[in-house]
Amino acid sequence: MKALILSIGEELLTGQTVNTNAAWMARQLNLAAVEVEEIRVIHDKRDDIRRSLQEVDPAISLVLITGGLGPTRDDVTRDVLCEHFDARLVPDQEVLNDITTYFTQRGREVTGINRDQAMVPNKARVLRNPNGTAPGMWFELDGRSCIAMPGVPFEMKEMMRNLVMPALLEKQGDRHILHKTVLTQGVGESALMEIIEGWEDNLPEDIQLAYLPSTGIVKLRLTGRGSHKSQLEEVINGQIDRLKQIIPEYIWGYDDDTLEGVLGERLRERGLTLTTAESCTGGYLAHRITSVAGSSDYFTGGIIAYDNRVKTGPLLGVDTRLIDSHGAVSREVAEAMALGAREGMHTDLAVATTGIAGPGGGTTNKPVGTTWIAIASEKGVHSKHYAFGNNRGRNLILAANAAMAMLIHSLK
Amino acid sequence: MKALILSIGEELLTGQTVNTNAAWMARQLNLAAVEVEEIRVIHDKRDDIRRSLQEVDPAISLVLITGGLGPTRDDVTRDVLCEHFDARLVPDQEVLNDITTYFTQRGREVTGINRDQAMVPNKARVLRNPNGTAPGMWFELDGRSCIAMPGVPFEMKEMMRNLVMPALLEKQGDRHILHKTVLTQGVGESALMEIIEGWEDNLPEDIQLAYLPSTGIVKLRLTGRGSHKSQLEEVINGQIDRLKQIIPEYIWGYDDDTLEGVLGERLRERGLTLTTAESCTGGYLAHRITSVAGSSDYFTGGIIAYDNRVKTGPLLGVDTRLIDSHGAVSREVAEAMALGAREGMHTDLAVATTGIAGPGGGTTNKPVGTTWIAIASEKGVHSKHYAFGNNRGRNLILAANAAMAMLIHSLK
Repeated sequence: MKALILSIGEELLTGQTVNTNAAWMARQLNLAAVEVEEIRVIHDKRDDIRRSLQEVDPAISLVLITGGLGPTRDDVTRDVLCEHFDARLVPDQEVLNDITTYFTQRGREVTGINRDQAMVPNKARVLRNPNGTAPGMWFELDGRSCIAMPGVPFEMKEMMRNLVMPALLEKQGDRHILHKTVLTQGVGESALMEIIEGWEDNLPEDIQLAYLPSTGIVKLRLTGRGSHKSQLEEVINGQIDRLKQIIPEYIWGYDDDTLEGVLGERLRERGLTLTTAESCTGGYLAHRITSVAGSSDYFTGGIIAYDNRVKTGPLLGVDTRLIDSHGAVSREVAEAMALGAREGMHTDLAVATTGIAGPGGGTTNKPVGTTWIAIASEKGVHSKHYAFGNNRGRNLILAANAAMAMLIHSLK
Repeated sequence: MKALILSIGEELLTGQTVNTNAAWMARQLNLAAVEVEEIRVIHDKRDDIRRSLQEVDPAISLVLITGGLGPTRDDVTRDVLCEHFDARLVPDQEVLNDITTYFTQRGREVTGINRDQAMVPNKARVLRNPNGTAPGMWFELDGRSCIAMPGVPFEMKEMMRNLVMPALLEKQGDRHILHKTVLTQGVGESALMEIIEGWEDNLPEDIQLAYLPSTGIVKLRLTGRGSHKSQLEEVINGQIDRLKQIIPEYIWGYDDDTLEGVLGERLRERGLTLTTAESCTGGYLAHRITSVAGSSDYFTGGIIAYDNRVKTGPLLGVDTRLIDSHGAVSREVAEAMALGAREGMHTDLAVATTGIAGPGGGTTNKPVGTTWIAIASEKGVHSKHYAFGNNRGRNLILAANAAMAMLIHSLK
């Protein structure tokens, strides 16, 4: 089944509101093997809504509309739907009761405008809205379903979950779409593509591969379509097993995993504690680690050593001569920071970052983006050099991602 | 000028990625008096892209395309654009140089796939991309501009800011929409609404006011439309002067100001240095402060004291008895942390946070969200209690925002 999502609302077209509704709906539909062919955002204007309804591609058998059902004058979706489906408005006692209850519970009077919301198209199945005043409407015409819902996220979500999705799943029978995503770090999109080209070429025809790159992480999403869920799972998992043998050093997680989440799990499993000594990442690495609920179990704290005097101070104890002879951005200083932090903070592991985040501070030998990351453990210390780019904000993310990936691999 | 935003990408249609690009672009366009008529999200498929280009409404004179320009096989936008504009691909030396530099800086080899990205349509103006390998393309045909940009947010944003928006503004001539935004912190939307009700009621008719709340900050956006820019500016600035007299204690900045940016300016003006001692914010406060380029001039570093042993350790030196008698989340400990950090890090100012970020750790007396923030300076130490909510991620942001606003006001 192919779907169109039609989002109606001025606030989406001025950018004041991000269209999170459409993304949420797409995820729900996907799980029910409904493919979203298009998302269209339009104004709350009669002509625009009319044209969008007329233009729907014949291949589309499901149109999901959100927004434009409120009581105010600029909400005209219901009228246009009546016109399009040649329906007329009739009063619905159940909806009127819902609206009255809604207002009574809030200690307010039902106004005439709200009472008008109990008028529904005679050709639509009404979708009751326990969280607001605008009911949803489900039209069926020539094998196509057209469902209009309110734009308020939690009203729409409850209507989708309780009324729309169960009915769609029933319609779908046993068609399945299965996604499985492999998360990699440490290799660019095009380099990765060349490494796994042979594997990609041999993927079965009903499995599609997509590369989804984002700030140092490349996600490989495998999508399979078929009628037997368990069989699909088997095929996809088999392909992932093959991939694991080709690029074990880059894979760190699957699906909705995060670097900080996987790192936390590994530390917890092994009963180890961690500290951070950050120069270029300026607290961002610790922030990522502590964004995980319960991270205080393994993260004791950290030092942000922006100024060299903090690097050479009592807690990190980096030898001033190291900075003088190698510079603050060097293997030697990164390793000394990690060793110092591990000792000073009494942890099992310590990770240190030092680099030139930019935009200033670059030199010919050490351009902006030059970064060293070191890890100290009971086994000693090891470090890695990175050459990131020119963008300060991006460099922080790349450095933190690299540091967490290094930690995860060292805990394997 | 009316615009269509065409977002290309499978990940947007499966809901894996929320279309924040389109919202950001719409906001930019709005500032330049360009009205977004429609946002359309489609698959990375030849037929879909082709059809969308053919279907563009005649009233649309600007089409902005993002996505589908990457080096991998599933990116086909460039081909379809060539076909649509009857163009052919020609090598572009400048783009090839950019791509080569991009890879060289990262210590990587240029692959054949990436070299292919230096092939550009002969009928397009090339938009160079300093942050990635896919250049943008600007076509002009029959009075309509069609601009294709990469889908990676920061690549697209820099291209829009530096190349696309200046050119569009020039095209727009003298129709003006003027936005001016007043930034407040420390007061909720509805409380603020009541305080400034009288002022709002007396705004001139051609000035609109919008409340834009976001995590502890309420932005008040004034919008004026007209043909005389200087006159518009005068009217809006006059209204803002009146507002400043009503709520001086809540206003901390204007327009694109950030708390971290304003804080940095104030510290720089006064020649003061700052350190942080963070418990609940776990590095996020330092991250916000160091996200400003050049922050190393006034930020020396900081301590993340997640574990109480770090709070009572050599650098902060909080008395263990304070924690025993008042708890780690208390005025006494927050103030001791700030005083200890200021002394240990040898700075003019120190700010400390301690709180229960959640989801765990709450008690009846100190529920999740309870937070203390303290500032130490040469004048001594002062602190403030906050009761935030149940959401861990949101609590971090609220605490960091409150800490920076406290610092800004203390530097007035």
